[in-house]
Amino acid sequence: MSLHADLEVFQQKYKKKIEEIMTGYVDEKSLPSTIRESMMYSLKAGGKRIRPILLLAVIEGYGKDPVLGMRTAAALEMIHTYSLIHDDLPSMDDDDLRRGKPTNHKVFGEAMAILAGDGLLTLSFQILTEDPLLLNEQKVNLVALLAKCAGAEGMVGGQVADIEGEDKTLTVEELESIHVRKTGRLLVFSALAGAIISGATQKEQTQLENYAYHIGLAFQIQDDILDIEGDEELIGKPVGSDESKKKSTYPGLLTMAGAKDKLHYHLDEALQSLNGLEMDVSLLKQISHLIVNRNH
Amino acid sequence: MSLHADLEVFQQKYKKKIEEIMTGYVDEKSLPSTIRESMMYSLKAGGKRIRPILLLAVIEGYGKDPVLGMRTAAALEMIHTYSLIHDDLPSMDDDDLRRGKPTNHKVFGEAMAILAGDGLLTLSFQILTEDPLLLNEQKVNLVALLAKCAGAEGMVGGQVADIEGEDKTLTVEELESIHVRKTGRLLVFSALAGAIISGATQKEQTQLENYAYHIGLAFQIQDDILDIEGDEELIGKPVGSDESKKKSTYPGLLTMAGAKDKLHYHLDEALQSLNGLEMDVSLLKQISHLIVNRNH
Repeated sequence: MSLHADLEVFQQKYKKKIEEIMTGYVDEKSLPSTIRESMMYSLKAGGKRIRPILLLAVIEGYGKDPVLGMRTAAALEMIHTYSLIHDDLPSMDDDDLRRGKPTNHKVFGEAMAILAGDGLLTLSFQILTEDPLLLNEQKVNLVALLAKCAGAEGMVGGQVADIEGEDKTLTVEELESIHVRKTGRLLVFSALAGAIISGATQKEQTQLENYAYHIGLAFQIQDDILDIEGDEELIGKPVGSDESKKKSTYPGLLTMAGAKDKLHYHLDEALQSLNGLEMDVSLLKQISHLIVNRNH
Repeated sequence: MSLHADLEVFQQKYKKKIEEIMTGYVDEKSLPSTIRESMMYSLKAGGKRIRPILLLAVIEGYGKDPVLGMRTAAALEMIHTYSLIHDDLPSMDDDDLRRGKPTNHKVFGEAMAILAGDGLLTLSFQILTEDPLLLNEQKVNLVALLAKCAGAEGMVGGQVADIEGEDKTLTVEELESIHVRKTGRLLVFSALAGAIISGATQKEQTQLENYAYHIGLAFQIQDDILDIEGDEELIGKPVGSDESKKKSTYPGLLTMAGAKDKLHYHLDEALQSLNGLEMDVSLLKQISHLIVNRNH
Protein backbone atom coordinates (compact mmCIF):
# COMPACT_ATOMS: atom_id res chain seq x y z
CA MET A 1 0.00 0.00 0.00
CA SER A 2 1.71 3.15 -1.17
CA LEU A 3 0.87 6.48 0.41
CA HIS A 4 2.01 8.15 -2.78
CA ALA A 5 0.03 6.07 -5.24
CA ASP A 6 -0.36 7.97 -8.45
CA LEU A 7 -3.77 7.80 -10.06
CA GLU A 8 -2.45 8.18 -13.58
CA VAL A 9 -0.01 5.27 -13.18
CA PHE A 10 -2.73 3.21 -11.50
CA GLN A 11 -5.22 4.02 -14.26
CA GLN A 12 -2.75 3.20 -17.06
CA LYS A 13 -1.91 -0.09 -15.40
CA TYR A 14 -5.46 -1.28 -14.94
CA LYS A 15 -7.34 0.28 -17.87
CA LYS A 16 -5.58 -2.06 -20.24
CA LYS A 17 -6.10 -5.10 -18.01
CA ILE A 18 -9.82 -4.45 -17.67
CA GLU A 19 -10.15 -4.14 -21.43
CA GLU A 20 -8.16 -7.38 -21.88
CA ILE A 21 -10.43 -9.24 -19.47
CA MET A 22 -13.60 -7.98 -21.13
CA THR A 23 -12.48 -8.66 -24.70
CA GLY A 24 -10.79 -11.95 -23.76
CA TYR A 25 -14.01 -13.12 -22.14
CA VAL A 26 -16.10 -12.26 -25.21
CA ASP A 27 -13.44 -13.80 -27.43
CA GLU A 28 -13.50 -17.21 -25.73
CA LYS A 29 -17.27 -17.57 -26.15
CA SER A 30 -18.90 -19.28 -29.08
CA LEU A 31 -20.95 -16.43 -30.58
CA PRO A 32 -22.28 -15.41 -34.00
CA SER A 33 -19.48 -13.31 -35.52
CA THR A 34 -21.66 -10.23 -36.05
CA ILE A 35 -22.69 -9.86 -32.42
CA ARG A 36 -19.12 -10.53 -31.33
CA GLU A 37 -17.91 -7.68 -33.55
CA SER A 38 -20.65 -5.38 -32.35
CA MET A 39 -19.88 -6.10 -28.67
CA MET A 40 -16.12 -5.77 -29.26
CA TYR A 41 -16.55 -2.47 -31.11
CA SER A 42 -18.12 -0.83 -28.08
CA LEU A 43 -15.92 -2.57 -25.48
CA LYS A 44 -12.82 -1.29 -27.30
CA ALA A 45 -14.17 2.24 -27.82
CA GLY A 46 -12.04 3.41 -24.91
CA GLY A 47 -13.23 5.89 -22.35
CA LYS A 48 -11.91 6.74 -18.93
CA ARG A 49 -12.96 3.47 -17.32
CA ILE A 50 -13.67 5.59 -14.26
CA ARG A 51 -16.05 3.05 -12.69
CA PRO A 52 -13.71 0.04 -12.70
CA ILE A 53 -10.78 2.27 -11.68
CA LEU A 54 -12.76 3.51 -8.69
CA LEU A 55 -13.63 -0.05 -7.70
CA LEU A 56 -10.00 -1.16 -7.91
CA ALA A 57 -8.80 2.00 -6.13
CA VAL A 58 -10.94 1.14 -3.11
CA ILE A 59 -9.38 -2.33 -2.98
CA GLU A 60 -5.87 -0.86 -3.37
CA GLY A 61 -6.71 1.64 -0.63
CA TYR A 62 -7.51 -1.25 1.71
CA GLY A 63 -4.07 -2.71 0.98
CA LYS A 64 -5.49 -5.69 -0.93
CA ASP A 65 -4.54 -6.84 -4.41
CA PRO A 66 -6.75 -5.12 -7.03
CA VAL A 67 -6.71 -8.37 -9.00
CA LEU A 68 -9.42 -9.51 -6.57
CA GLY A 69 -11.82 -7.00 -8.12
CA MET A 70 -10.83 -7.41 -11.74
CA ARG A 71 -13.77 -9.49 -12.91
CA THR A 72 -16.28 -7.44 -10.97
CA ALA A 73 -14.72 -4.35 -12.56
CA ALA A 74 -15.06 -5.95 -16.01
CA ALA A 75 -18.71 -6.83 -15.27
CA LEU A 76 -19.37 -3.24 -14.25
CA GLU A 77 -17.73 -1.79 -17.35
CA MET A 78 -19.72 -4.21 -19.55
CA ILE A 79 -22.93 -2.89 -17.99
CA HIS A 80 -21.80 0.68 -18.52
CA THR A 81 -20.99 -0.16 -22.15
CA TYR A 82 -24.38 -1.78 -22.78
CA SER A 83 -26.11 1.27 -21.33
CA LEU A 84 -24.26 3.58 -23.73
CA ILE A 85 -25.23 1.40 -26.72
CA HIS A 86 -28.92 1.41 -25.77
CA ASP A 87 -28.95 5.11 -24.76
CA ASP A 88 -27.56 6.10 -28.17
CA LEU A 89 -30.35 4.31 -30.11
CA PRO A 90 -32.60 6.34 -32.42
CA SER A 91 -35.65 5.79 -30.18
CA MET A 92 -33.66 7.02 -27.16
CA ASP A 93 -31.05 9.82 -27.34
CA ASP A 94 -30.50 9.29 -31.09
CA ASP A 95 -26.75 9.97 -31.02
CA ASP A 96 -24.53 9.38 -34.05
CA LEU A 97 -21.21 9.87 -32.30
CA ARG A 98 -19.73 8.51 -29.09
CA ARG A 99 -16.16 9.36 -28.12
CA GLY A 100 -15.59 10.69 -31.62
CA LYS A 101 -16.62 7.43 -33.32
CA PRO A 102 -19.90 6.37 -34.93
CA THR A 103 -22.27 4.88 -32.36
CA ASN A 104 -22.88 1.13 -32.36
CA HIS A 105 -26.19 1.17 -34.25
CA LYS A 106 -24.67 3.44 -36.92
CA VAL A 107 -22.14 0.68 -37.68
CA PHE A 108 -24.08 -2.51 -36.96
CA GLY A 109 -27.72 -1.46 -37.32
CA GLU A 110 -30.39 -1.07 -34.68
CA ALA A 111 -31.29 -4.73 -34.18
CA MET A 112 -27.67 -5.75 -33.62
CA ALA A 113 -27.06 -2.80 -31.29
CA ILE A 114 -30.04 -3.82 -29.14
CA LEU A 115 -28.87 -7.44 -29.07
CA ALA A 116 -25.23 -6.55 -28.38
CA GLY A 117 -26.45 -4.49 -25.43
CA ASP A 118 -28.61 -7.36 -24.19
CA GLY A 119 -25.67 -9.72 -24.62
CA LEU A 120 -23.25 -7.50 -22.66
CA LEU A 121 -25.74 -6.96 -19.86
CA THR A 122 -26.28 -10.71 -19.54
CA LEU A 123 -22.56 -11.51 -19.84
CA SER A 124 -21.72 -9.13 -17.02
CA PHE A 125 -23.54 -11.33 -14.52
CA GLN A 126 -21.89 -14.42 -15.96
CA ILE A 127 -18.32 -13.08 -15.69
CA LEU A 128 -18.98 -12.02 -12.11
CA THR A 129 -20.35 -15.39 -10.99
CA GLU A 130 -17.52 -17.28 -12.69
CA ASP A 131 -14.86 -15.32 -10.77
CA PRO A 132 -12.46 -17.87 -9.20
CA LEU A 133 -11.14 -15.40 -6.59
CA LEU A 134 -14.35 -14.47 -4.78
CA LEU A 135 -16.41 -16.38 -2.24
CA ASN A 136 -19.93 -17.42 -3.18
CA GLU A 137 -21.36 -15.10 -0.54
CA GLN A 138 -19.48 -12.16 -2.08
CA LYS A 139 -20.65 -13.08 -5.58
CA VAL A 140 -24.28 -13.27 -4.49
CA ASN A 141 -24.05 -9.88 -2.75
CA LEU A 142 -22.32 -8.33 -5.77
CA VAL A 143 -24.84 -9.68 -8.30
CA ALA A 144 -27.77 -8.46 -6.19
CA LEU A 145 -26.17 -5.04 -5.73
CA LEU A 146 -25.17 -4.69 -9.37
CA ALA A 147 -28.67 -5.59 -10.53
CA LYS A 148 -30.21 -3.13 -8.10
CA CYS A 149 -27.87 -0.30 -9.17
CA ALA A 150 -28.14 -1.02 -12.92
CA GLY A 151 -31.84 -1.89 -13.18
CA ALA A 152 -35.13 -0.04 -13.19
CA GLU A 153 -34.63 1.17 -9.61
CA GLY A 154 -31.26 2.58 -10.62
CA MET A 155 -29.62 3.35 -13.94
CA VAL A 156 -32.45 2.16 -16.21
CA GLY A 157 -34.96 4.12 -14.12
CA GLY A 158 -32.74 7.18 -14.46
CA GLN A 159 -32.79 6.85 -18.22
CA VAL A 160 -36.59 6.59 -18.14
CA ALA A 161 -36.81 9.76 -16.04
CA ASP A 162 -34.28 11.47 -18.33
CA ILE A 163 -36.37 10.71 -21.43
CA GLU A 164 -39.55 11.80 -19.69
CA GLY A 165 -37.86 15.03 -18.59
CA GLU A 166 -36.99 16.11 -22.13
CA ASP A 167 -38.65 19.29 -23.37
CA LYS A 168 -39.66 20.11 -19.81
CA THR A 169 -38.10 22.58 -17.40
CA LEU A 170 -37.15 20.49 -14.39
CA THR A 171 -36.44 21.64 -10.86
CA VAL A 172 -32.91 21.10 -9.53
CA GLU A 173 -34.33 18.33 -7.33
CA GLU A 174 -35.84 16.54 -10.33
CA LEU A 175 -32.60 16.89 -12.29
CA GLU A 176 -30.65 15.53 -9.33
CA SER A 177 -33.01 12.58 -9.00
CA ILE A 178 -32.34 11.68 -12.63
CA HIS A 179 -28.56 11.86 -12.30
CA VAL A 180 -28.41 10.08 -8.96
CA ARG A 181 -29.91 7.10 -10.75
CA LYS A 182 -28.60 7.41 -14.30
CA THR A 183 -24.94 8.10 -13.49
CA GLY A 184 -24.73 7.89 -9.73
CA ARG A 185 -25.82 4.36 -8.96
CA LEU A 186 -23.10 2.63 -10.97
CA LEU A 187 -20.50 4.81 -9.22
CA VAL A 188 -22.04 3.80 -5.90
CA PHE A 189 -21.74 0.20 -7.02
CA SER A 190 -18.07 0.79 -7.86
CA ALA A 191 -17.24 2.03 -4.38
CA LEU A 192 -19.42 -0.51 -2.55
CA ALA A 193 -18.19 -3.44 -4.60
CA GLY A 194 -14.59 -2.48 -3.76
CA ALA A 195 -15.60 -2.28 -0.13
CA ILE A 196 -17.41 -5.65 -0.17
CA ILE A 197 -14.44 -7.34 -1.82
CA SER A 198 -12.08 -5.76 0.73
CA GLY A 199 -14.23 -6.83 3.67
CA ALA A 200 -15.01 -3.27 4.79
CA THR A 201 -17.36 -2.73 7.75
CA GLN A 202 -20.92 -1.55 7.28
CA LYS A 203 -19.98 1.91 8.58
CA GLU A 204 -17.13 2.20 6.12
CA GLN A 205 -19.41 1.04 3.31
CA THR A 206 -21.84 3.84 4.17
CA GLN A 207 -19.02 6.41 4.06
CA LEU A 208 -17.79 5.12 0.70
CA GLU A 209 -21.34 5.10 -0.64
CA ASN A 210 -21.67 8.72 0.41
CA TYR A 211 -18.36 9.57 -1.28
CA ALA A 212 -19.55 7.93 -4.51
CA TYR A 213 -22.91 9.68 -4.34
CA HIS A 214 -21.23 13.08 -4.29
CA ILE A 215 -18.62 12.37 -6.97
CA GLY A 216 -21.48 11.04 -9.11
CA LEU A 217 -23.29 14.35 -8.93
CA ALA A 218 -20.03 16.26 -9.41
CA PHE A 219 -19.35 14.12 -12.49
CA GLN A 220 -22.69 15.05 -14.02
CA ILE A 221 -22.40 18.76 -13.24
CA GLN A 222 -18.95 18.79 -14.89
CA ASP A 223 -20.52 16.98 -17.88
CA ASP A 224 -23.10 19.74 -18.22
CA ILE A 225 -20.38 22.40 -17.90
CA LEU A 226 -18.23 20.70 -20.56
CA ASP A 227 -21.21 20.59 -22.90
CA ILE A 228 -21.03 24.41 -22.89
CA GLU A 229 -17.38 25.24 -22.21
CA GLY A 230 -15.69 22.08 -23.48
CA ASP A 231 -13.51 21.45 -26.52
CA GLU A 232 -15.34 19.36 -29.17
CA GLU A 233 -12.10 17.61 -30.12
CA LEU A 234 -11.50 16.50 -26.54
CA ILE A 235 -15.04 15.51 -25.56
CA GLY A 236 -15.64 13.67 -28.85
CA LYS A 237 -19.09 15.12 -29.54
CA PRO A 238 -20.47 18.52 -30.52
CA VAL A 239 -20.74 21.06 -27.70
CA GLY A 240 -24.18 22.52 -27.09
CA SER A 241 -25.93 19.18 -27.65
CA ASP A 242 -27.87 19.47 -24.36
CA GLU A 243 -29.24 22.85 -25.40
CA SER A 244 -30.16 21.69 -28.89
CA LYS A 245 -32.01 18.73 -27.31
CA LYS A 246 -33.67 21.12 -24.84
CA LYS A 247 -32.33 19.13 -21.90
CA SER A 248 -32.40 20.63 -18.43
CA THR A 249 -28.84 21.17 -17.15
CA TYR A 250 -27.21 22.54 -14.02
CA PRO A 251 -25.86 25.68 -15.75
CA GLY A 252 -29.27 26.19 -17.35
CA LEU A 253 -31.08 26.01 -14.00
CA LEU A 254 -28.46 27.61 -11.75
CA THR A 255 -26.35 29.80 -14.10
CA MET A 256 -22.78 28.76 -14.88
CA ALA A 257 -21.47 30.28 -11.63
CA GLY A 258 -24.17 28.47 -9.64
CA ALA A 259 -23.32 25.18 -11.32
CA LYS A 260 -19.64 25.60 -10.49
CA ASP A 261 -20.50 26.36 -6.86
CA LYS A 262 -22.57 23.19 -6.71
CA LEU A 263 -19.74 21.23 -8.32
CA HIS A 264 -17.36 22.32 -5.57
CA TYR A 265 -19.94 21.67 -2.88
CA HIS A 266 -20.18 18.03 -3.99
CA LEU A 267 -16.38 17.77 -4.23
CA ASP A 268 -16.09 18.97 -0.63
CA GLU A 269 -18.77 16.57 0.56
CA ALA A 270 -17.06 13.69 -1.23
CA LEU A 271 -13.73 14.49 0.38
CA GLN A 272 -15.31 14.86 3.81
CA SER A 273 -16.92 11.44 3.44
CA LEU A 274 -13.45 9.94 3.36
CA ASN A 275 -12.51 11.31 6.79
CA GLY A 276 -11.80 8.67 9.38
CA LEU A 277 -11.72 5.73 6.98
CA GLU A 278 -9.06 3.21 7.98
CA MET A 279 -7.58 2.97 4.52
CA ASP A 280 -5.29 4.89 2.20
CA VAL A 281 -7.66 7.36 0.54
CA SER A 282 -5.11 9.10 -1.70
CA LEU A 283 -6.37 7.49 -4.93
CA LEU A 284 -9.97 8.28 -4.01
CA LYS A 285 -9.06 11.92 -3.39
CA GLN A 286 -7.32 12.07 -6.74
CA ILE A 287 -10.34 10.55 -8.47
CA SER A 288 -12.64 13.23 -7.07
CA HIS A 289 -10.25 15.99 -8.18
CA LEU A 290 -9.94 14.39 -11.61
CA ILE A 291 -13.72 14.41 -12.03
CA VAL A 292 -13.92 18.10 -11.23
CA ASN A 293 -10.92 19.17 -13.30
CA ARG A 294 -11.33 16.92 -16.34
CA ASN A 295 -11.66 18.51 -19.75
CA HIS A 296 -13.33 15.50 -21.43
CA MET B 1 -45.00 -37.18 -4.47
CA SER B 2 -48.02 -38.34 -6.43
CA LEU B 3 -47.69 -40.90 -9.18
CA HIS B 4 -50.85 -39.50 -10.70
CA ALA B 5 -49.90 -35.85 -10.67
CA ASP B 6 -51.99 -34.05 -13.19
CA LEU B 7 -50.18 -31.47 -15.30
CA GLU B 8 -53.24 -29.31 -15.73
CA VAL B 9 -53.84 -29.07 -11.99
CA PHE B 10 -50.15 -28.47 -11.39
CA GLN B 11 -50.04 -25.76 -14.06
CA GLN B 12 -53.14 -24.00 -12.74
CA LYS B 13 -51.74 -24.06 -9.24
CA TYR B 14 -48.34 -22.59 -10.07
CA LYS B 15 -49.05 -20.33 -13.06
CA LYS B 16 -50.86 -17.92 -10.80
CA LYS B 17 -48.18 -18.07 -8.09
CA ILE B 18 -45.39 -17.33 -10.56
CA GLU B 19 -47.28 -14.35 -11.90
CA GLU B 20 -47.89 -13.15 -8.35
CA ILE B 21 -44.21 -13.40 -7.47
CA MET B 22 -43.14 -11.54 -10.61
CA THR B 23 -45.67 -8.75 -10.33
CA GLY B 24 -45.31 -8.52 -6.54
CA TYR B 25 -41.56 -8.11 -6.94
CA VAL B 26 -41.93 -5.34 -9.51
CA ASP B 27 -44.63 -3.75 -7.37
CA GLU B 28 -42.48 -3.46 -4.25
CA LYS B 29 -39.68 -1.64 -6.11
CA SER B 30 -39.42 2.13 -6.32
CA LEU B 31 -39.65 2.67 -10.10
CA PRO B 32 -40.85 5.40 -12.47
CA SER B 33 -44.54 4.64 -13.02
CA THR B 34 -44.25 4.34 -16.82
CA ILE B 35 -41.62 1.61 -16.77
CA ARG B 36 -43.53 -0.19 -14.03
CA GLU B 37 -46.66 -0.18 -16.21
CA SER B 38 -44.72 -1.31 -19.25
CA MET B 39 -43.06 -4.19 -17.37
CA MET B 40 -46.37 -5.20 -15.75
CA TYR B 41 -48.21 -5.14 -19.07
CA SER B 42 -45.94 -7.82 -20.51
CA LEU B 43 -45.60 -9.82 -17.29
CA LYS B 44 -49.40 -10.06 -17.08
CA ALA B 45 -49.90 -10.87 -20.77
CA GLY B 46 -50.37 -14.51 -19.87
CA GLY B 47 -48.95 -17.35 -21.87
CA LYS B 48 -48.41 -20.98 -21.02
CA ARG B 49 -45.57 -20.34 -18.55
CA ILE B 50 -44.11 -23.57 -19.88
CA ARG B 51 -40.54 -22.79 -18.75
CA PRO B 52 -41.29 -22.16 -15.06
CA ILE B 53 -43.77 -25.05 -15.02
CA LEU B 54 -41.07 -27.38 -16.37
CA LEU B 55 -38.62 -26.15 -13.73
CA LEU B 56 -41.12 -26.73 -10.93
CA ALA B 57 -42.19 -30.10 -12.38
CA VAL B 58 -38.61 -31.36 -12.10
CA ILE B 59 -38.52 -30.35 -8.43
CA GLU B 60 -41.93 -31.98 -7.82
CA GLY B 61 -40.67 -35.08 -9.62
CA TYR B 62 -37.80 -35.31 -7.14
CA GLY B 63 -40.31 -35.22 -4.30
CA LYS B 64 -39.22 -31.75 -3.13
CA ASP B 65 -41.41 -28.73 -2.55
CA PRO B 66 -41.76 -26.67 -5.76
CA VAL B 67 -41.71 -23.54 -3.60
CA LEU B 68 -37.92 -23.99 -3.56
CA GLY B 69 -37.81 -23.13 -7.25
CA MET B 70 -40.37 -20.35 -7.29
CA ARG B 71 -38.03 -17.37 -7.47
CA THR B 72 -35.78 -19.04 -10.02
CA ALA B 73 -38.91 -19.78 -12.04
CA ALA B 74 -39.96 -16.14 -11.79
CA ALA B 75 -36.45 -15.02 -12.87
CA LEU B 76 -36.66 -17.34 -15.87
CA GLU B 77 -40.09 -16.10 -16.92
CA MET B 78 -38.92 -12.48 -16.57
CA ILE B 79 -36.06 -13.24 -18.98
CA HIS B 80 -38.48 -14.92 -21.38
CA THR B 81 -40.77 -11.88 -21.15
CA TYR B 82 -37.95 -9.40 -21.82
CA SER B 83 -36.90 -11.45 -24.87
CA LEU B 84 -40.42 -11.26 -26.31
CA ILE B 85 -40.55 -7.48 -25.82
CA HIS B 86 -37.21 -6.96 -27.60
CA ASP B 87 -37.93 -9.53 -30.34
CA ASP B 88 -41.17 -7.75 -31.22
CA LEU B 89 -39.47 -4.35 -31.75
CA PRO B 90 -39.72 -2.69 -35.18
CA SER B 91 -35.99 -3.17 -35.85
CA MET B 92 -36.30 -6.89 -35.00
CA ASP B 93 -39.37 -8.98 -35.88
CA ASP B 94 -41.63 -5.91 -36.06
CA ASP B 95 -44.70 -7.58 -34.59
CA ASP B 96 -47.83 -5.65 -33.66
CA LEU B 97 -49.60 -8.46 -31.83
CA ARG B 98 -48.53 -10.90 -29.13
CA ARG B 99 -51.04 -13.35 -27.65
CA GLY B 100 -53.81 -11.36 -29.30
CA LYS B 101 -52.83 -8.08 -27.63
CA PRO B 102 -50.81 -5.11 -28.94
CA THR B 103 -47.08 -5.64 -28.39
CA ASN B 104 -45.29 -3.63 -25.70
CA HIS B 105 -43.81 -0.97 -28.00
CA LYS B 106 -47.21 -0.44 -29.65
CA VAL B 107 -48.58 0.60 -26.26
CA PHE B 108 -45.59 2.24 -24.55
CA GLY B 109 -43.37 3.29 -27.45
CA GLU B 110 -40.03 1.92 -28.57
CA ALA B 111 -37.79 3.59 -25.97
CA MET B 112 -39.90 2.36 -23.07
CA ALA B 113 -40.13 -1.16 -24.54
CA ILE B 114 -36.34 -1.37 -24.80
CA LEU B 115 -35.93 -0.07 -21.24
CA ALA B 116 -38.65 -2.34 -19.83
CA GLY B 117 -36.84 -5.28 -21.42
CA ASP B 118 -33.51 -4.14 -19.96
CA GLY B 119 -35.18 -3.69 -16.59
CA LEU B 120 -36.75 -7.16 -16.60
CA LEU B 121 -33.50 -8.82 -17.68
CA THR B 122 -31.62 -7.09 -14.86
CA LEU B 123 -34.33 -7.75 -12.30
CA SER B 124 -34.29 -11.45 -13.08
CA PHE B 125 -30.77 -11.78 -11.66
CA GLN B 126 -31.74 -9.73 -8.65
CA ILE B 127 -34.78 -11.83 -7.73
CA LEU B 128 -32.73 -14.99 -8.06
CA THR B 129 -29.90 -13.81 -5.81
CA GLU B 130 -32.32 -12.52 -3.18
CA ASP B 131 -34.00 -15.93 -2.85
CA PRO B 132 -34.10 -16.79 0.87
CA LEU B 133 -34.56 -20.53 0.24
CA LEU B 134 -31.45 -21.32 -1.80
CA LEU B 135 -27.82 -21.73 -0.76
CA ASN B 136 -25.27 -19.24 -2.05
CA GLU B 137 -23.57 -21.98 -4.05
CA GLN B 138 -26.86 -22.80 -5.78
CA LYS B 139 -27.55 -19.15 -6.52
CA VAL B 140 -24.11 -18.66 -8.06
CA ASN B 141 -24.53 -21.76 -10.23
CA LEU B 142 -28.02 -20.68 -11.29
CA VAL B 143 -27.01 -17.11 -12.18
CA ALA B 144 -24.05 -18.39 -14.23
CA LEU B 145 -26.21 -20.96 -16.02
CA LEU B 146 -29.08 -18.54 -16.65
CA ALA B 147 -26.70 -15.94 -18.09
CA LYS B 148 -25.07 -18.56 -20.32
CA CYS B 149 -28.43 -19.86 -21.58
CA ALA B 150 -30.00 -16.42 -22.06
CA GLY B 151 -27.01 -14.50 -23.44
CA ALA B 152 -25.14 -14.23 -26.71
CA GLU B 153 -24.02 -17.87 -26.53
CA GLY B 154 -27.62 -18.90 -26.09
CA MET B 155 -30.95 -17.18 -26.64
CA VAL B 156 -29.60 -13.78 -27.76
CA GLY B 157 -27.23 -15.53 -30.19
CA GLY B 158 -30.19 -17.51 -31.54
CA GLN B 159 -32.08 -14.29 -32.20
CA VAL B 160 -29.02 -12.91 -34.04
CA ALA B 161 -28.84 -16.04 -36.19
CA ASP B 162 -32.59 -15.90 -36.76
CA ILE B 163 -32.43 -12.31 -38.04
CA GLU B 164 -29.43 -13.12 -40.22
CA GLY B 165 -31.25 -16.15 -41.64
CA GLU B 166 -34.21 -14.12 -42.88
CA ASP B 167 -34.75 -14.07 -46.65
CA LYS B 168 -32.32 -17.01 -47.00
CA THR B 169 -33.08 -20.66 -47.54
CA LEU B 170 -31.47 -22.40 -44.60
CA THR B 171 -30.50 -26.05 -44.28
CA VAL B 172 -32.29 -28.09 -41.62
CA GLU B 173 -29.04 -28.02 -39.61
CA GLU B 174 -28.88 -24.23 -39.73
CA LEU B 175 -32.54 -23.96 -38.75
CA GLU B 176 -31.95 -26.37 -35.87
CA SER B 177 -28.92 -24.40 -34.69
CA ILE B 178 -31.09 -21.27 -34.49
CA HIS B 179 -33.87 -22.95 -32.52
CA VAL B 180 -31.54 -24.83 -30.18
CA ARG B 181 -30.33 -21.43 -29.02
CA LYS B 182 -33.36 -19.18 -29.45
CA THR B 183 -35.97 -21.45 -27.82
CA GLY B 184 -33.99 -24.44 -26.61
CA ARG B 185 -31.51 -22.98 -24.17
CA LEU B 186 -34.09 -21.50 -21.80
CA LEU B 187 -35.88 -24.86 -21.73
CA VAL B 188 -32.55 -26.52 -20.95
CA PHE B 189 -32.13 -23.99 -18.14
CA SER B 190 -35.61 -24.87 -16.85
CA ALA B 191 -34.78 -28.56 -16.54
CA LEU B 192 -31.24 -28.06 -15.23
CA ALA B 193 -32.27 -25.43 -12.70
CA GLY B 194 -34.90 -27.82 -11.35
CA ALA B 195 -32.23 -30.50 -11.14
CA ILE B 196 -29.68 -28.22 -9.41
CA ILE B 197 -32.27 -27.10 -6.85
CA SER B 198 -33.26 -30.74 -6.23
CA GLY B 199 -29.65 -31.86 -5.81
CA ALA B 200 -29.69 -34.20 -8.83
CA THR B 201 -26.49 -36.02 -9.81
CA GLN B 202 -24.41 -34.96 -12.81
CA LYS B 203 -25.64 -37.99 -14.76
CA GLU B 204 -29.26 -37.15 -14.07
CA GLN B 205 -28.61 -33.53 -15.04
CA THR B 206 -27.29 -34.71 -18.39
CA GLN B 207 -30.41 -36.83 -18.96
CA LEU B 208 -32.69 -33.94 -18.08
CA GLU B 209 -30.71 -31.61 -20.32
CA ASN B 210 -31.16 -34.07 -23.16
CA TYR B 211 -34.88 -34.28 -22.47
CA ALA B 212 -35.15 -30.48 -22.58
CA TYR B 213 -33.09 -30.28 -25.77
CA HIS B 214 -35.56 -32.54 -27.56
CA ILE B 215 -38.75 -30.96 -26.23
CA GLY B 216 -37.26 -27.61 -27.25
CA LEU B 217 -36.95 -28.71 -30.85
CA ALA B 218 -40.37 -30.38 -30.74
CA PHE B 219 -41.78 -27.12 -29.40
CA GLN B 220 -40.38 -25.16 -32.33
CA ILE B 221 -41.51 -27.66 -34.96
CA GLN B 222 -45.03 -27.56 -33.53
CA ASP B 223 -44.83 -23.75 -33.65
CA ASP B 224 -44.01 -23.91 -37.34
CA ILE B 225 -46.85 -26.38 -37.93
CA LEU B 226 -49.36 -24.20 -36.07
CA ASP B 227 -48.31 -21.21 -38.15
CA ILE B 228 -49.78 -23.12 -41.12
CA GLU B 229 -52.48 -25.37 -39.66
CA GLY B 230 -53.37 -23.42 -36.51
CA ASP B 231 -56.46 -21.44 -35.56
CA GLU B 232 -55.78 -17.67 -35.52
CA GLU B 233 -58.15 -17.19 -32.60
CA LEU B 234 -56.28 -19.73 -30.51
CA ILE B 235 -52.69 -18.79 -31.38
CA GLY B 236 -53.39 -15.06 -31.03
CA LYS B 237 -51.62 -14.00 -34.22
CA PRO B 238 -52.29 -14.38 -37.96
CA VAL B 239 -51.44 -17.78 -39.47
CA GLY B 240 -48.99 -17.74 -42.34
CA SER B 241 -46.79 -15.07 -40.72
CA ASP B 242 -43.62 -17.16 -41.22
CA GLU B 243 -44.30 -17.47 -44.93
CA SER B 244 -45.11 -13.79 -45.34
CA LYS B 245 -41.79 -12.98 -43.60
CA LYS B 246 -40.01 -15.55 -45.80
CA LYS B 247 -38.75 -17.40 -42.74
CA SER B 248 -37.34 -20.89 -43.13
CA THR B 249 -39.55 -23.42 -41.35
CA TYR B 250 -39.57 -27.17 -40.80
CA PRO B 251 -42.65 -27.75 -43.02
CA GLY B 252 -41.07 -25.53 -45.67
CA LEU B 253 -37.82 -27.50 -45.69
CA LEU B 254 -39.16 -30.99 -44.99
CA THR B 255 -42.83 -30.89 -46.19
CA MET B 256 -45.59 -31.01 -43.61
CA ALA B 257 -45.38 -34.82 -43.35
CA GLY B 258 -41.61 -34.62 -42.87
CA ALA B 259 -42.00 -31.96 -40.16
CA LYS B 260 -44.52 -34.13 -38.31
CA ASP B 261 -42.17 -37.11 -38.50
CA LYS B 262 -39.41 -34.99 -37.01
CA LEU B 263 -41.75 -33.74 -34.31
CA HIS B 264 -42.46 -37.31 -33.23
CA TYR B 265 -38.80 -38.27 -33.45
CA HIS B 266 -37.95 -35.54 -30.91
CA LEU B 267 -40.88 -36.53 -28.72
CA ASP B 268 -39.60 -40.12 -28.64
CA GLU B 269 -36.05 -38.99 -27.87
CA ALA B 270 -37.31 -36.75 -25.07
CA LEU B 271 -39.27 -39.60 -23.52
CA GLN B 272 -36.34 -41.99 -23.81
CA SER B 273 -34.09 -39.49 -22.03
CA LEU B 274 -36.28 -39.92 -18.97
CA ASN B 275 -35.62 -43.66 -18.71
CA GLY B 276 -33.84 -44.73 -15.57
CA LEU B 277 -34.17 -41.43 -13.75
CA GLU B 278 -34.79 -41.94 -10.04
CA MET B 279 -37.70 -39.57 -9.90
CA ASP B 280 -41.38 -39.42 -10.77
CA VAL B 281 -41.32 -38.43 -14.45
CA SER B 282 -45.08 -38.36 -15.02
CA LEU B 283 -45.31 -34.56 -15.18
CA LEU B 284 -42.35 -34.41 -17.56
CA LYS B 285 -43.97 -36.97 -19.84
CA GLN B 286 -47.18 -34.98 -19.83
CA ILE B 287 -45.27 -31.79 -20.67
CA SER B 288 -43.70 -33.39 -23.72
CA HIS B 289 -47.08 -34.66 -24.92
CA LEU B 290 -48.62 -31.25 -24.29
CA ILE B 291 -45.97 -29.61 -26.47
CA VAL B 292 -46.68 -31.94 -29.35
CA ASN B 293 -50.47 -31.84 -29.10
CA ARG B 294 -51.01 -28.17 -28.23
CA ASN B 295 -53.16 -26.08 -30.53
CA HIS B 296 -51.76 -22.71 -29.41
